[in-house]
Amino acid sequence: MTKTANEVKAPRLLDSINSPADLRKLPVTDLPQVCREIREFLIEACSGNPGHFASSMGAVELTVALHYVFDTPHDRLVWDVGHQAYGHKLLTGRRDRFSTNRTLGGLSGFPNPDESEYDTFTAGHASNSISAALGMAVATRLADEKRNVVAIIGDASVSGGLAFEGINNAANTPNNLLIVLNDNDMSIDRNVGSLNSYLAHLTTSPGYNRWRYRLYKGLHKLHLVSERGRGAIMRFNNSLKSLIVREQNIFEGLNIRYFGPFDGHDVIKIVRVLTDIRDMDGPRILHLRTIKGKGYAPAEADPAKWHAPGKFDPSTGRRACDKPASAPHPPKFQDVFGETLLELAKANPKIVGITAAMPSGTSMSIMQAAMPDRVFDVGISEGHAVTFAGGLAKEGMIPFTAIYSSFLQRGYDHIIHDVAIQRLPVVFCIDRAGLVGEDGMTHHGALDMAYLRSIPNIIVSAPADEAAMRDLMYTASLGKHGPFAIRYPRGGGRMIDWRTPMNEVEIGKGRRLRDGNQVAVLSIGTVGPDVADAVAKAVAEGVDAAHYDMVFLKPIDENILQEVAAKGCPIVTVEDGSVNGGLGGAVAEWMTANGHSPRITRLGIPDKFVTQGTPAQLRHLCGFDTDAIVKAILNAKE
Amino acid sequence: MTKTANEVKAPRLLDSINSPADLRKLPVTDLPQVCREIREFLIEACSGNPGHFASSMGAVELTVALHYVFDTPHDRLVWDVGHQAYGHKLLTGRRDRFSTNRTLGGLSGFPNPDESEYDTFTAGHASNSISAALGMAVATRLADEKRNVVAIIGDASVSGGLAFEGINNAANTPNNLLIVLNDNDMSIDRNVGSLNSYLAHLTTSPGYNRWRYRLYKGLHKLHLVSERGRGAIMRFNNSLKSLIVREQNIFEGLNIRYFGPFDGHDVIKIVRVLTDIRDMDGPRILHLRTIKGKGYAPAEADPAKWHAPGKFDPSTGRRACDKPASAPHPPKFQDVFGETLLELAKANPKIVGITAAMPSGTSMSIMQAAMPDRVFDVGISEGHAVTFAGGLAKEGMIPFTAIYSSFLQRGYDHIIHDVAIQRLPVVFCIDRAGLVGEDGMTHHGALDMAYLRSIPNIIVSAPADEAAMRDLMYTASLGKHGPFAIRYPRGGGRMIDWRTPMNEVEIGKGRRLRDGNQVAVLSIGTVGPDVADAVAKAVAEGVDAAHYDMVFLKPIDENILQEVAAKGCPIVTVEDGSVNGGLGGAVAEWMTANGHSPRITRLGIPDKFVTQGTPAQLRHLCGFDTDAIVKAILNAKE
Repeated sequence: MTKTANEVKAPRLLDSINSPADLRKLPVTDLPQVCREIREFLIEACSGNPGHFASSMGAVELTVALHYVFDTPHDRLVWDVGHQAYGHKLLTGRRDRFSTNRTLGGLSGFPNPDESEYDTFTAGHASNSISAALGMAVATRLADEKRNVVAIIGDASVSGGLAFEGINNAANTPNNLLIVLNDNDMSIDRNVGSLNSYLAHLTTSPGYNRWRYRLYKGLHKLHLVSERGRGAIMRFNNSLKSLIVREQNIFEGLNIRYFGPFDGHDVIKIVRVLTDIRDMDGPRILHLRTIKGKGYAPAEADPAKWHAPGKFDPSTGRRACDKPASAPHPPKFQDVFGETLLELAKANPKIVGITAAMPSGTSMSIMQAAMPDRVFDVGISEGHAVTFAGGLAKEGMIPFTAIYSSFLQRGYDHIIHDVAIQRLPVVFCIDRAGLVGEDGMTHHGALDMAYLRSIPNIIVSAPADEAAMRDLMYTASLGKHGPFAIRYPRGGGRMIDWRTPMNEVEIGKGRRLRDGNQVAVLSIGTVGPDVADAVAKAVAEGVDAAHYDMVFLKPIDENILQEVAAKGCPIVTVEDGSVNGGLGGAVAEWMTANGHSPRITRLGIPDKFVTQGTPAQLRHLCGFDTDAIVKAILNAKE
Repeated sequence: MTKTANEVKAPRLLDSINSPADLRKLPVTDLPQVCREIREFLIEACSGNPGHFASSMGAVELTVALHYVFDTPHDRLVWDVGHQAYGHKLLTGRRDRFSTNRTLGGLSGFPNPDESEYDTFTAGHASNSISAALGMAVATRLADEKRNVVAIIGDASVSGGLAFEGINNAANTPNNLLIVLNDNDMSIDRNVGSLNSYLAHLTTSPGYNRWRYRLYKGLHKLHLVSERGRGAIMRFNNSLKSLIVREQNIFEGLNIRYFGPFDGHDVIKIVRVLTDIRDMDGPRILHLRTIKGKGYAPAEADPAKWHAPGKFDPSTGRRACDKPASAPHPPKFQDVFGETLLELAKANPKIVGITAAMPSGTSMSIMQAAMPDRVFDVGISEGHAVTFAGGLAKEGMIPFTAIYSSFLQRGYDHIIHDVAIQRLPVVFCIDRAGLVGEDGMTHHGALDMAYLRSIPNIIVSAPADEAAMRDLMYTASLGKHGPFAIRYPRGGGRMIDWRTPMNEVEIGKGRRLRDGNQVAVLSIGTVGPDVADAVAKAVAEGVDAAHYDMVFLKPIDENILQEVAAKGCPIVTVEDGSVNGGLGGAVAEWMTANGHSPRITRLGIPDKFVTQGTPAQLRHLCGFDTDAIVKAILNAKE
C-alpha cells in the first residue's frame, strides 16, 4: 500500500471522523470508502507497530455498520476478546493516538473502559461478552431506560462454556440483547469443535435464510404479527428449512432469534439488516461471515500467521520475523517446551498433549505436526481442557496441558476438583507466566503461584532456564508425583545450546547458586539469571549476598529455608508473580512458623493490575528489574 | 413403608447382590423387584441418616440398567455430581456400610475413587462428567483397549458451560462415549435456562422418537447401513421430525446421536435400549425422563424439599426439620443473609440478587419470593453468574451474588477479569465458606480467602456474627468500594436476636475484643466466638492473651498489626480456611516485611483435602476447635 495513489485523492473521510456521531453524518454510500480507509490505516499502522492485525481487518465493515446504526456510546457495544476492535478504536476518537497502541502509556490493545466510554467492558479473555452484555441489558430494563446492547463475539469465542452459559441465560431472561456472531472460521489458530462445524454448515444455506429474513422484515414493518404469531411462523420456517437445507438451527432451538448468515464485508447490507432488527424485542443473533485478514492478501492467505504478525513490510507482506536471524539466539521457552515435549512423547507412549486453541502460541504445534493423534486442541475451553486431562490421566495417560497462566484461571476449580483431589498426574505447562508485556493487564500471568500454592497435592515449579525446564518436564513425565505445574514466561531465555540431556530432579529441592552471609536472595523461575546478575553487582558493591534458586514453590525446600534462617540475615525474595501469597508469602509463613525472625523484602508483581509495556519496562515499573534487585539487596543489608 | 408386607416375602434379591456381577446373573424380569428393594432400602436408610434422597430415588432404574448392561468396573460409569449415585453404591458392595453414609470414616456422600473401583472420578461439582469421561474414552482408544465409558448427567448439570465444552469436544474427537441424560426437570431447585425448556419440549414428541429409534435399531441389526448412510437417514429423520413435532434436536446439530426420550422408570426398556446402543460407534446421548423422588410420594410432590430432607419419618413423610423448634434458636446464616438482603433491597432499588441454581440453599429465595423481577437464578453456571453480575454492576446495579465457596472456584477468572479489573461493585456473598461438614472434601470452602487475597482491588471480609454480617452487607450495598466479598459458613451462629440495626463499617478495620500482652490471637469470621471462648479459657489458665477480630482479610487492619507487633509477643491466627495464603499468610507477610519477628502459629484448614464429618469433628481434626485453640495459645506463650 504505497501512498502515491492516495496523495492526489480527496482528503480522507476518516480524517473527519472524530467520533461515531461524525460517522453517522455521512451518507450510507460513503461507508465502503470509510472501510477502505480504515484498512489502509490499519495496514500502515500495524506494519510499523505490531498488534493483532488479521482479526481487526476482518471486522472493519461490521464495526462501521454498528457505529452507524447504533447510538454509541449511549447504546453499548461489548466486544469479545477485542482482537477485532482496532477499527472501533479508530472511529471513537483514538485515531491520533493509535501509533501508541500496546506501548507503555499508550492505547490498550484491547477495549478498556478506563480508556474510553465507548469501551464498555474489559475484553481480554474470550467468551465473556454475552454474559456481560446480558447484565447490561437487564440493568437497562430494570432502570426503565431505553438503550440497545450488542455483544460482538467471534465463532471461536462462542464455543467457550461461558458463552454457552450466557446464551442459555439470555434466552430465558427478558432482555433485548443483540449478539453479533463474527464468524471467520478461525480462532487464533484454526477452529475446532462441533459448534464450529455446525456454524460452517449454517452458512451453506444463505438463500433460504435470506428468504426468511425478508419474511420477518416484511411482517415486522407491517406490524402484522404478534410475538406469538411470530413464534408460529418461526417454527414453520424452521421445519421448512430443515427439509430444504437439511439443517437445523441450534440458536432457535434455544429460543434466540437467528438472522443470517450474511456477508460480513457488505457494509451497506449490514447497515440495512441492523436497522431492521435493531428495535425488535428479545434476544437475537446476527450471523456474519467474515474473512480474517480481509483486504490484505498475505493475511487472507494465512490468517493464523497474521493474527499478530509483528512488524512487516506493507508492500511485500514480508514479516520481520520471517527473516533469518543474523546470529544464533536462544529460542523462545515455548519452542523449548514444544521440542522437548515431542522428544519425551517419542520415548513414552503415555504422553499426550492438550491445548485450548493455542497450538501455535504454546508451540504444542510441534508435537501436533508429528503426532496428530496424540495432541488434542480442545478449542477455547480451559475448564474442559483440565477436566479432560484428568480423565486421560485417570486411565493412565500423562497429559501435558499447556495453557496461558491468565487463561488457566478459567480452569481453577477443575485443577482442584478434577485433578488435585485424585492426585492425577496431569502436567500443567503454564505458559505466559509472569509479566507478558504488550498484551497488558488482562494477560499478565501474575496469580498462578498464589492460586496454586494453597491447593493440596499439587507440585508447583518454575525453571530458571531451559535446561532446568527440560529436567522438570522429564521428571513430570514420569507420572510419579501427581499433579505437576511448571510455569515459564513468554519469550526467550539465555541459552543457545539448550538441548541438554534430561535428568530426573528431586521434588522440592532448590539450588544454592552463591553462598554469602549478609543477605539471602531467594528466587524462583526465569528471573533467576537477572537475580544472579544483581547478586554479582551487590557483591561487587561489598554485600556478601547468598543466592538460592528455589525451583519448587511447593513443596518448598525446607533445607534451604533452614540454612537461610541459620544465617540470621535479611531475606530478599524475587518472583515474576504476585508478591501476595507466592514465594515471598511461603517463605514468610515458614519463617514465622518456625520461630525465625528475618526481615523479608518481597519483590515481584505488586498488588495491582499492571499495565502494558515491554517486559523490561514493566519489570522496572514493578520494581524487580536488575537494578531494583541490587538496590533491594543493598537496602536489606542496612 | 412398613415392613409387614415384606416380612413374609422371600428373602430380598438385594441381599444376594454384592457386586454388579451378581446383578447380572439375574433374569431381566427380576430387575423391577431389585428396583423396588433399592427404593425401600433408600427410604429406610435416608430417613434415619440424612442424605441426598430425591435424586437417588429418581435414578434407581437407570442405575440398575447400567450395571446390568455394562461390564462394570471394566466399563466406566462416570456420575455427574453424584447426588444420584446411592443406588450405585448399594449395588457395588457398599450396602452394609451404607448406614455410615456421610459420616466421619464412613462412606462418602458422592462417588469417590478412593472408596471403590466402581467410582471412577471425583463427583462433587456439577457438569464435569462429560469432560472426564471423554478423557477416559480417548485414553482407552489410545491404549487400544476395548471398554465402554458412560457419563450420567442430570439436566441441570448439562446446562453448565463445562458440560457444553465437553459435548462440543466429544462431537469432534474420535470416541465412543455414551452420555445418559437423567432428565427430571429439576436441579436442586427448579431448573432454569433455555436448554431446560428445550429438553422439556423434546419430551413432547415421544411417539416420533420411538419410531425413529426403531428404525435405527432395525437398520443396525441388519447391518444394512454404513455410517454414511446412517447420516442421511438421520437428516431425513430430523427434517421429518421438525415438520411433525415442530422441534429440532440440538444434540444432533452438534453431531451427537440422540436417542429418546424414554421413560426412565421402565427398567426393562432401558436395558433393551442400552443393549442396542451399547456398541455403536461415536458419541451418543440417551435421554431418559425421570421423576425426582420417584417411589416416595412426599418426595415426588415436592422434590426440592426432598433433595436433602434431613431425617424423616418414612411412614408419614414428616421431616424432622418440619417440626417447630421447642425453643427459639439462632437462624442459619443463610436466612440472616436472605432476610437482610430483602431488607436492603426494599430500601435500595439498585440491589439485585443472583444465584446459580441455589435459591433455597442460599436463602436467596426470600428475596426471590418478594421481588421475583430483581432476582436472577442463572442455573448451574457460576462463571456466567459472576460475569453477568459484572455487566449489571457496570450499568449501576449492586448485584449480591450468592455462591457457595467451593463452587465459586468455577468463577475465579471471572472475578478477576470481569469484576476486579474494573472495580465493579459486585457483592460476593460466599456461602458455605470453611468446613461444611457432611458433604466432605469436594464441598469444603477452604480456599476462598487464599484465592481472593491475591486479586487486586477486591475487599475480602468475614463477619464474626450475625450483626457484623448485616453491617458488612449494608456497607457493601452502598457500592462505594468496588468488589466486596463477604464469607460466611453453612449453618447457624449464636445470636437469637439477630435483627440488629445496620451500620456502615470502616473498610479494613478490625476490632480488639480483649487486650493482653503475652499472646495475641487474631481471628477472622465465625470462628470468632469459639476463639473468644478459647481466649477466656487461656486467660483462666494464666495466659494474658489479646484477641482481635480482623473482620477484613483485605485490606488488612495495619493498625492492629502494628499494635500487635509492638507487644513483641507470639501470635496465633485462627481462620476457617486454608492455613496457606489466608489470614495467617497475610499476617506473616506483613510482619516480616515490616521488620517484626513474632513467632506465628497458624490454625485453620491444613494443606490437605479434608474428609467428611460433623463440623465439630472436622474442626477437631483440623486442629482449630476450642480446645486446640486453647492449647495453641498456651504453647505459644512458652
